Amino acid sequence: MEVFTVDGLPEIQPGDDIAALIAEQVSLREDDVVCIASTIVSKAEGRQADLAEFPASDRAKRIAERIGEAAGERKDPRFAQAVLEESEELLLEFPILLAVTRFGHITVNAGIDRSNIPGADLLLLPEDPNNSAERLHEELDSRVVVTDTSGRPFRYGQRGVALGWAGLPAARDWRGEYDRNGKELTATVQAVVDELAAAANLVTGEGAGGTPVAVVRDWNFGDHEGSDELFRTETDDLIRPALRAWTDSHQDR
Amino acid sequence: MEVFTVDGLPEIQPGDDIAALIAEQVSLREDDVVCIASTIVSKAEGRQADLAEFPASDRAKRIAERIGEAAGERKDPRFAQAVLEESEELLLEFPILLAVTRFGHITVNAGIDRSNIPGADLLLLPEDPNNSAERLHEELDSRVVVTDTSGRPFRYGQRGVALGWAGLPAARDWRGEYDRNGKELTATVQAVVDELAAAANLVTGEGAGGTPVAVVRDWNFGDHEGSDELFRTETDDLIRPALRAWTDSHQDR
Repeated sequence: MEVFTVDGLPEIQPGDDIAALIAEQVSLREDDVVCIASTIVSKAEGRQADLAEFPASDRAKRIAERIGEAAGERKDPRFAQAVLEESEELLLEFPILLAVTRFGHITVNAGIDRSNIPGADLLLLPEDPNNSAERLHEELDSRVVVTDTSGRPFRYGQRGVALGWAGLPAARDWRGEYDRNGKELTATVQAVVDELAAAANLVTGEGAGGTPVAVVRDWNFGDHEGSDELFRTETDDLIRPALRAWTDSHQDR
Repeated sequence: MEVFTVDGLPEIQPGDDIAALIAEQVSLREDDVVCIASTIVSKAEGRQADLAEFPASDRAKRIAERIGEAAGERKDPRFAQAVLEESEELLLEFPILLAVTRFGHITVNAGIDRSNIPGADLLLLPEDPNNSAERLHEELDSRVVVTDTSGRPFRYGQRGVALGWAGLPAARDWRGEYDRNGKELTATVQAVVDELAAAANLVTGEGAGGTPVAVVRDWNFGDHEGSDELFRTETDDLIRPALRAWTDSHQDR
């Protein structure tokens, strides 16, 4: 398997045809996995926004004030408002905003970006990353993963994760397959789209030298069952109820 | 960057020299990252164990009974005992055993494996994966990541993660670097060893066809500050206190 960046893309503007711009730079194969940073998907989809569009509610003001006091610097309550409007729910309101986005991804600040956005204060995540991936998959005729970087519980640091995917399932389901000793493998589902996003993130980088697209070539899903569930639902999530109870007992709502 | 498996390794036995066995199969370069599944590190280090070595305490019996009742099948309390003995703490006792291992990794069942272990019931994780990685790094003269697969909060499925590493830092620290618009990047630490483990897991697979070693070639850490913190400490972990409170209020201890 080979992983390489697609270089030479211009700064993406609202309305840009990302698929065409990528296809100009690289000759893709049908079984390539094209990992595309959600930042450029958002930029092309016009998800730039200004803080002025988010007049702060009382709840946003309370949230920003509490975080600001602890941090020793003023926090803009309009940013908290933007996070609230992009979220189904906040699992934590302090000391960070841990949000459940409308498409099920759980991340800090609902994934709203404040860097690398010419002419705007904020960049919101794509509204429906699976929908974006599906469109790009059709246009590129390759498998597509829309990626982001995100922190996580228990471990420091960010790593690449998938937000949307098309042309391949989210996961390999090994259940019903057997180990070397003939014992059935149980509970083994491999979230390959997240691993593809992580592999891509190793070569794309962030900051001034960052490139938003990488291709994974010569990687096969293989002869396994597929599963398209990536974001845990309420009923399968053991962490969410504990965080909710914690927030209810320790925080102003 | 290229990722490929190292094929042809024998079934690993206690006392085997993994580095020598790997070096027989592949000609490594100094800047290769050799991703080695913790299973074979454990096997070489003699971490096979039998359930009979873990006579169940009252706590283990209570834990196994409760999980077994909900699952509708008997659970072996000696397995719960093994998990307890391999853990600093259980963050959840029901419906799964979410354990903090002695080296800081948080995972289900303290990472104890019950498949692919000829002649033993269980395979425990290496006692000190960073120590194992350091030894393998010296012997192979390449960068080394000791990997495992692990589930995670909020998202379904397992993905490759790093348990130990040597010859490279755990993370790239981008703080103090700048985005394209000259704005300083904040809070951006990239857990590259986890991303390397994820990339390796895409090609190694599990089950009967699995290979335990993959090489990542032509990947550069780059000119960034490094950080060696991967496992969140108590004070930086927002999830742990919530889970503890949940366990205290909902579960027998």
